Amino acid sequence: MIRSHEAGTLRKEHAGQQVTLAGWVGRRRDHGGVTFIDLRDASGTAQVVFREEDTAHDLRSEFCVKIVGEVRVRPEGNENAELPTGDVEVAATDIEVLSDAAPLPFPIEGDVNVNEEIRLKYRYLDLRRDNVARAMRIRSEASFLTHEVMRELRFVNVETPTLTRSTPEGARDFLVPVRLQPGHWYALPQSPQLFKQLLMVGGLERYYQIARCYRDEDFRADRQPEFTQIDIEMSFCDQDDVLTVGETLVARLWKEIAGYEIPRPIPHITYADAMSRFGSDKPDLRFGVELTDMTEYFAGTSFRVFQAPYVGAVVMPGGAAQTRKELDAWQDWAKSRGARGLAYVLVQEDGTLGGPVAKNLSDTEKAGLAAKAGAEPGDAIFFGAGKRHGTQELLGAARLEIGRRRDLIDESAWKFVWVVDAPIFEPVEDDNGERIGWTSVHHPFTAPKPEFADTFQDDPGGALANAYDLVLNGNEIGGGSLRIHRAEMQQRVFDVLGMSKQEAESKFGFLLEAFKFGPPPHGGIAFGWDRTVMLLAGHDSIRDVIAFPKAASAYDPLTGAPTPITPEQRAEAGVDATPEHDADETAEN
Amino acid sequence: MIRSHEAGTLRKEHAGQQVTLAGWVGRRRDHGGVTFIDLRDASGTAQVVFREEDTAHDLRSEFCVKIVGEVRVRPEGNENAELPTGDVEVAATDIEVLSDAAPLPFPIEGDVNVNEEIRLKYRYLDLRRDNVARAMRIRSEASFLTHEVMRELRFVNVETPTLTRSTPEGARDFLVPVRLQPGHWYALPQSPQLFKQLLMVGGLERYYQIARCYRDEDFRADRQPEFTQIDIEMSFCDQDDVLTVGETLVARLWKEIAGYEIPRPIPHITYADAMSRFGSDKPDLRFGVELTDMTEYFAGTSFRVFQAPYVGAVVMPGGAAQTRKELDAWQDWAKSRGARGLAYVLVQEDGTLGGPVAKNLSDTEKAGLAAKAGAEPGDAIFFGAGKRHGTQELLGAARLEIGRRRDLIDESAWKFVWVVDAPIFEPVEDDNGERIGWTSVHHPFTAPKPEFADTFQDDPGGALANAYDLVLNGNEIGGGSLRIHRAEMQQRVFDVLGMSKQEAESKFGFLLEAFKFGPPPHGGIAFGWDRTVMLLAGHDSIRDVIAFPKAASAYDPLTGAPTPITPEQRAEAGVDATPEHDADETAEN
Repeated sequence: MIRSHEAGTLRKEHAGQQVTLAGWVGRRRDHGGVTFIDLRDASGTAQVVFREEDTAHDLRSEFCVKIVGEVRVRPEGNENAELPTGDVEVAATDIEVLSDAAPLPFPIEGDVNVNEEIRLKYRYLDLRRDNVARAMRIRSEASFLTHEVMRELRFVNVETPTLTRSTPEGARDFLVPVRLQPGHWYALPQSPQLFKQLLMVGGLERYYQIARCYRDEDFRADRQPEFTQIDIEMSFCDQDDVLTVGETLVARLWKEIAGYEIPRPIPHITYADAMSRFGSDKPDLRFGVELTDMTEYFAGTSFRVFQAPYVGAVVMPGGAAQTRKELDAWQDWAKSRGARGLAYVLVQEDGTLGGPVAKNLSDTEKAGLAAKAGAEPGDAIFFGAGKRHGTQELLGAARLEIGRRRDLIDESAWKFVWVVDAPIFEPVEDDNGERIGWTSVHHPFTAPKPEFADTFQDDPGGALANAYDLVLNGNEIGGGSLRIHRAEMQQRVFDVLGMSKQEAESKFGFLLEAFKFGPPPHGGIAFGWDRTVMLLAGHDSIRDVIAFPKAASAYDPLTGAPTPITPEQRAEAGVDATPEHDADETAEN
Repeated sequence: MIRSHEAGTLRKEHAGQQVTLAGWVGRRRDHGGVTFIDLRDASGTAQVVFREEDTAHDLRSEFCVKIVGEVRVRPEGNENAELPTGDVEVAATDIEVLSDAAPLPFPIEGDVNVNEEIRLKYRYLDLRRDNVARAMRIRSEASFLTHEVMRELRFVNVETPTLTRSTPEGARDFLVPVRLQPGHWYALPQSPQLFKQLLMVGGLERYYQIARCYRDEDFRADRQPEFTQIDIEMSFCDQDDVLTVGETLVARLWKEIAGYEIPRPIPHITYADAMSRFGSDKPDLRFGVELTDMTEYFAGTSFRVFQAPYVGAVVMPGGAAQTRKELDAWQDWAKSRGARGLAYVLVQEDGTLGGPVAKNLSDTEKAGLAAKAGAEPGDAIFFGAGKRHGTQELLGAARLEIGRRRDLIDESAWKFVWVVDAPIFEPVEDDNGERIGWTSVHHPFTAPKPEFADTFQDDPGGALANAYDLVLNGNEIGGGSLRIHRAEMQQRVFDVLGMSKQEAESKFGFLLEAFKFGPPPHGGIAFGWDRTVMLLAGHDSIRDVIAFPKAASAYDPLTGAPTPITPEQRAEAGVDATPEHDADETAEN
């Protein structure tokens, strides 16, 4: 190494030693002929002192320099207790500029007030900032711990292909033309799902991978076109075996990195309970404020709005004191979510009910309302009425909004919960809300719970799956299921989904073929790694824990990708070639 | 788990215990009313005995079954010492077929005599075979050890993007159309080179990754369109620092997995010496047979063929006894490599020289020839004459062929060597062998050695780089270099390469921009992971250590990928969209 010591490691015991440091010029202070520079490297910073003015004269921020000097104890009173190296400084005798730096687009030290696109364009400068570099190191450590845990649990790390079969139905697959077979394309996989199931058929029994996955879709704040998941699959297992593996992993991560001992076993809540109590399939348990089912309470109501298959309520503590403007804002909030509005009743301090809804209610309805909904004087009660699932979701969102506005969420808490017993299917509806079919809640290989194994096709909406999600503070960080491994059951699932034999063959033909050869019972789980690390590291955006993330619309401000291509590139990639007939047949093999 | 024990773990001490096993039906033997089945799972196999004929009647190979029974010590004389479970057997009392198996395309146990494409089409069955499963487990363990070593050395594991910027010059890049920006494309990277250098600019100092890479080209037996490399980069380092990291890694891998202690330091050989002594930049040091430079020896020859800028020789021990047919075969071998033939002289037992070349040589030339070339009576001497580099390569290939034909290669040996001091540039030649320019031997960021830093542009062919390859048994398993980190030097390299500012900007603009902000001196290395694991696991093909490899022409016999796409897929992927002007400008940003 061209240095003898790392800047951040210097201590009193180095005093008197001649050292060579290398790093970047941070803060600089000039004091009448003496220049102090914070020299920063990956280990931390050390104060370097230049006696002769000229030497340090041309050093500007973020120059990369090599410095030779003597470590000495700082004069009394000049120590910096906040810095690990704060007892010493290096009296420079020689300096070499390894490379200079142009004026910076934003400062490296302290707060940054530029928009994210600028930070991403100069991501290499952003990475020099403490908290960004720290996030990279946490991610690295978390990955290592994952490898360690999975190896201890005797899982085999297998790399599965990312150049895979494209199918006409893979609507969100990235496609890749193949030069060697002009007119033929690969797809980049949204997950290693099919391959990990093949590995189970292959008898590997315990597989995991930190796998890059791809999804070509309009992504929200927390989505990237490429993302990483911890992918796990095992054979001959019960649901509890998979959950134990998942718990062992997160317990180690949180203990080692966040210093938090997750209470185990992590509690379970059924999907149905999560929806009815919290209006969410990923409930945030850091605060109370549960939904109340008012359907029966309003069974005989004459208020039209509440004549609905489901009526629910959620209480906003202290919400009766809201201004007209605040109450109106709730209506806008509800409308922005596609609802018509958010009915409410204000429970006055004297127990009377205010707000526009109250006058539509009968005296009996009014009399027991606050007690039924669990509201105290001074609270507001919000109502939702309509189809059960969508209405619960609206109230669940209102619950979260109440938590935020009322500051009810304990930001320091870690609340893990397994959401279990999810439905296998959910209805596909047309624009009028009429059911026109069924789709998989997880994916078409999810096994029904044994008690629904013979009947799920008769009542798809009521059948529950051996499926589970791990939820942390209202974020789904992992999910999985036990899989179907019998062809007969798989066919019945395809039938419910209205998937033709031809379509099943095109999408999953090779997996169905594999299932002819003694597939073991198996199941698994996958963790969304970007989001998991984001939470673990205490960040708000997955982009904070990705070294080179994309910005909106899949655009990379750093490299300018994606770009147009030239006609020569098109020709060479075979983008416009017509596939030959025999190649075509091979592909359908 | 649905079983109580793993089959391969049963021992005498389990005798008398009731166990539940789950796995696959292997070999089966029927002996008058008693059926013996080898039950196989990932842990090994156990013998299961069925007393009642019917129970086992329908069990065929590779059925997946659950068996309940009692462990008992095998009757004396029936033990199988080759099997860890060979002292015991399980007397089955209950059996459940978890799934049945169709007739197999090839047997799981014993040798397989089907072509590789069939094995790859049914890779999930191939994976049930002992040696294939073992290769997967070795790869997994090797990956873990890599993570462990790199963490101990304080490297940070960073995931870099695989959806990156495409450039018109990226001739072997896979391209990926982006739905959200119709007409715009990503490229899949051939390596994380640019990103790892950006991480160094970002001050991370020590980076590694087990990285998926992509190359869209016609691949030979040992190439795949997607492959994996161990990618390493560090800052403020000398060449020795990088070599030490590389040695530490391979030393741990070979010790833990192959049980072999690599002698360290691994010896160095210069590129020039490797070429002149072994005719290869990746010399196989498991046997001798070095090349001899005969240029000076034949400086005054009247034999036209040897009037060349370089004449070299390689000796085939015992080669004088070859038949006419064998000697002719060498000519065909040389022609298949693009040479005109392979001149040879046979040193007879009496010391006289035979073969067609001998009569063209002067008496003086003949007199000292065997001694000069290092040949003994009974040997053959092969000659090459022409341009130095290509001729040495021909003789180097002949050397390897000699080693194989004469069985000189110690297949049990591990011979590691660092090949150092490679040239920075190599000539680009036209069809007539005339030099028309220069190209990078490694890549354009490779730094010249200090003694050539100021002069390389005057004599590009003579300038050496701070570049190094790690060679094992004649295979390059790793390679890297110290990088240029000064814009001025980088520009001179681009000048030698004849790369215009515009081209450099298009390909590397964002890296050059980053280099304006205090880039540190840095260097790195990358290991071809598939090949490294192949050698470590003792396999002959990288496909043996890849779970789901592609066959020839990038075709996947298992999934049928790549496939044609539908017009709807084309439209949705934006393949034929014309980029909008402003998007275009953004991309060139």
